[in-house]
Amino acid sequence: MAEQQELSSTIEQTADKLEETVLDEEGKPLSKKALKKLEQKREKERAKKERERIELERKAAEAYGSENFGKKPLNQSQERTATKRIRISEINGSRDGEIITIRARVQTSRAKSQIAFFVFRQQFSTVQGVLTVDKDNVSKGFVKFASSIPDESIVDVEGVIIKTKEEIKSTTVTDAELHIKKLYTISETVGRLPFTMDEATRPEDLIQQADTQFNRITLETRLNNRVVDLRTITNQAIFRIQSGVCQLFREFLISKGFIEIHTPKILGAASEGGASVFSVKYFKTEAFLAQSPQFYKQMCICSDFDRVFEIAPVFRAENANTHRHMTEFVGLDLEMAFEEHYHEVLEVLDELFVFIFQGLKTKFAAEIETVKRQHKAPDFEFLPKTLRLEYKDAVKLLREKGVEIGDYDDLSTETERILGQLVKEKYNTDFYMLDKFPLEVRPFYTMPDPNNDKYSNSYDFFMRGEEILSGAQRIHDAAFLEERAKVHNIDPQTIQGYIDAFKRGAPPHAGGGIGLERVVMLYLNLGNIRRSSLFPRDPKRLEP
Amino acid sequence: MAEQQELSSTIEQTADKLEETVLDEEGKPLSKKALKKLEQKREKERAKKERERIELERKAAEAYGSENFGKKPLNQSQERTATKRIRISEINGSRDGEIITIRARVQTSRAKSQIAFFVFRQQFSTVQGVLTVDKDNVSKGFVKFASSIPDESIVDVEGVIIKTKEEIKSTTVTDAELHIKKLYTISETVGRLPFTMDEATRPEDLIQQADTQFNRITLETRLNNRVVDLRTITNQAIFRIQSGVCQLFREFLISKGFIEIHTPKILGAASEGGASVFSVKYFKTEAFLAQSPQFYKQMCICSDFDRVFEIAPVFRAENANTHRHMTEFVGLDLEMAFEEHYHEVLEVLDELFVFIFQGLKTKFAAEIETVKRQHKAPDFEFLPKTLRLEYKDAVKLLREKGVEIGDYDDLSTETERILGQLVKEKYNTDFYMLDKFPLEVRPFYTMPDPNNDKYSNSYDFFMRGEEILSGAQRIHDAAFLEERAKVHNIDPQTIQGYIDAFKRGAPPHAGGGIGLERVVMLYLNLGNIRRSSLFPRDPKRLEP
Repeated sequence: MAEQQELSSTIEQTADKLEETVLDEEGKPLSKKALKKLEQKREKERAKKERERIELERKAAEAYGSENFGKKPLNQSQERTATKRIRISEINGSRDGEIITIRARVQTSRAKSQIAFFVFRQQFSTVQGVLTVDKDNVSKGFVKFASSIPDESIVDVEGVIIKTKEEIKSTTVTDAELHIKKLYTISETVGRLPFTMDEATRPEDLIQQADTQFNRITLETRLNNRVVDLRTITNQAIFRIQSGVCQLFREFLISKGFIEIHTPKILGAASEGGASVFSVKYFKTEAFLAQSPQFYKQMCICSDFDRVFEIAPVFRAENANTHRHMTEFVGLDLEMAFEEHYHEVLEVLDELFVFIFQGLKTKFAAEIETVKRQHKAPDFEFLPKTLRLEYKDAVKLLREKGVEIGDYDDLSTETERILGQLVKEKYNTDFYMLDKFPLEVRPFYTMPDPNNDKYSNSYDFFMRGEEILSGAQRIHDAAFLEERAKVHNIDPQTIQGYIDAFKRGAPPHAGGGIGLERVVMLYLNLGNIRRSSLFPRDPKRLEP
Repeated sequence: MAEQQELSSTIEQTADKLEETVLDEEGKPLSKKALKKLEQKREKERAKKERERIELERKAAEAYGSENFGKKPLNQSQERTATKRIRISEINGSRDGEIITIRARVQTSRAKSQIAFFVFRQQFSTVQGVLTVDKDNVSKGFVKFASSIPDESIVDVEGVIIKTKEEIKSTTVTDAELHIKKLYTISETVGRLPFTMDEATRPEDLIQQADTQFNRITLETRLNNRVVDLRTITNQAIFRIQSGVCQLFREFLISKGFIEIHTPKILGAASEGGASVFSVKYFKTEAFLAQSPQFYKQMCICSDFDRVFEIAPVFRAENANTHRHMTEFVGLDLEMAFEEHYHEVLEVLDELFVFIFQGLKTKFAAEIETVKRQHKAPDFEFLPKTLRLEYKDAVKLLREKGVEIGDYDDLSTETERILGQLVKEKYNTDFYMLDKFPLEVRPFYTMPDPNNDKYSNSYDFFMRGEEILSGAQRIHDAAFLEERAKVHNIDPQTIQGYIDAFKRGAPPHAGGGIGLERVVMLYLNLGNIRRSSLFPRDPKRLEP
């Protein structure tokens, strides 16, 4: 209001000046020539003043209702007005006429002089906002301010919900828009954004077309600007699904009598022989980062916890630069005492995965659909009772297809992929268990098969032809464990604490470790594990 | 059976030999003298044979029913008999006469010649087992074998549930015992145990009595033999409660729209100025272990996840050897965008803790009682609406009690303890929030108080006078954050990725980090944080 009053008085002063009498410097009236010249000069001045006046009036016109917009001071929790803000997802045509407030990002804006259009976003939801000049509240200044707000800034918007006649296709709210009455910035973006949300959410298949006008935003660019990249609806969905996998994993296991454990990640000795282990400076000594909670979850079994699980980071110092390796990932680990046969554990694992897949399908259907819009993928197929294939039968299948593989050879990534295809063709499932691996390709603590010690009581699980779980019955006898360590050239003294645990009496037990990011990547067919990790770590990436 | 038949035939042969005729070496009958001598010799031999016969008969007697006991071969999952095993907790007098099988540890055993008594244990549950010689199935050999099984071995027991007339006070099953019919060892302990379960479970107050005959098992001994120590009912309870805290934490937050995140623990730069950070050899460069997920959970807020939590290890390279510090612990972290005031977050945290405490009280009542039997403690008191005390008022309270403290000084451990007592006396709660800490004693990213920049929008929570949560409203403006970093002598370049996140627009937000082991230690009044960590890590301990 103060600004408006000031403008009015300036206009009055300008008008006064136009009324003054004309004399020369000595006080006499001017000659005709001089007068003409003066008049020309005056005319120019008058025109200039007029332009100024118009400009000032325009500014005055723009500036009314200035309390309805602007930049809010930095929120330091100055006050609680208890203004109720609703979610964009709650906006719809049936609420026509309601005045509401939302806090949202400005995804995009475009303006003409009298009107501006916005897309406001919260996570998955978007709504169209319209700002039109009117006589009382919305000045041109307001429109100018609003349309100059940088994309991705956070704003508070007060507006009226208006039911639209035609369907709005560009936003998730399709039958209503928000007619803006007030608009304040809460946090403004600084500098140029690395990419827009539209670019970052564009379907992969559209980009891959030969005649496309779209540039691909590389994964590298995305990861370098991860904070912006994670805002895409696709990423919002991926990490909700990731969170969901953890919830489902725990829900199932707790219902089966498991308890959650937390085991140390800094170890005094490099476990499992010392390969692929990161070393840590630990005060005046050296320590190592755990490659898995293997030894500790087994020690918990020796301590009678009976059934345990852990969700925790796992560290691997492998210089592997592939689509499915990271140096740090999240392990979903479990270990379980059984009564007679490790297949008791396989049955629990079978039920667990079916529970997770079923849970994702029902509880995260919308998120899965969202991801699919960007990353097209066939539905993930699984059986109500998971296929359990023996290693020797898998070898047979592969040989029938002409793959050369020895009886006791390990599977290569490529062979795993082919096997996945063969299984899919034969059994129509993207998920299966491969049981009875050759003993030699498994860790020293793996229990040999009782009937043929070339094989072992160990298994891997696969999703879309890639390994996501590795597990086995473990040796629970100290003397035998020591013997097997030696065969693997591991000095038992370096793992004495672990071996000694079994001297205190240990039940037969089995378990497994699941790679969380692999499960999410393969379930959604994302093609690269970095897409299912918030801030991935690989041999070349430690930032952000 | 084969062994028994062999014994019988040996006895028959011995009897035959006693019937032979007596001649000398030339075939004549012997002289009287010689005969007497011979008879003496024969008498001796007869006596000897008789002893042998008795011994053999005894062995035969011992050995019948040998199929009912023995050492089972190493379980390599040879077979599935589908024998149903029940839990000890399912045994009671009403099942009198039922034949059942259990797998359990032999906690203790004592034997006379004809009878042996056992205590069998599964986690929290114990039952008395009785083995009595009978004519058909239980030989003396069985009793001898059974009573020689080392304590803590794992056995399969088949027996009849017998309702007892008198209450059994030494086991958790009080109205029934198990009359053993079959007993096999599944895994036998090797060597001397460091302590018995009885010793390890003895109530602390009993040990502390001046005239006690009991030696204390030091925490050091317990931790060195953690696998055995964790089998005590007290530890079984403590870690179920720890698991419970995590479940309740997640259950509440998920119901409030939070999602679970997993942020990297290996960082490219030492965050928060570089003090107390472990360094890691990362291929050809140096990396650091995360002291907290602080920066990453905030970056998730900048990425519109809105409400996030994480349960993960936290690493602190502090050479602190106290009852409440570890170099690795489990952080329960959360971060939340708010609309107007960080007290919105404090309200969520308030509800969260009340939910956890209430949940422990109702769902873990038995476990809490179990722990109390060993570690006596007054009940943990909390209010339905948590007390929120301002720092300046806490200073006032302390000064009234004669504690010298400056307006903007931090609290020492001792001052915290005294304040806890004062609060307990005045408000009858073991849990409260301390709000509005002096700005100077808080991290650089803490939002200053809007009215007095000597204070800040930050808080600690306390249980029984010790800090268990630290949190604050965070600065969400990049320029201001950079300015504050400089004040704290942190080079903004070292945390550029973090600062840049706020240039992309960030909502006002606040959060906190909770130490899981501290919550458990203080809730149960365990006196040392190592008691609430499965395998604790401190500057002097990296094993087991």
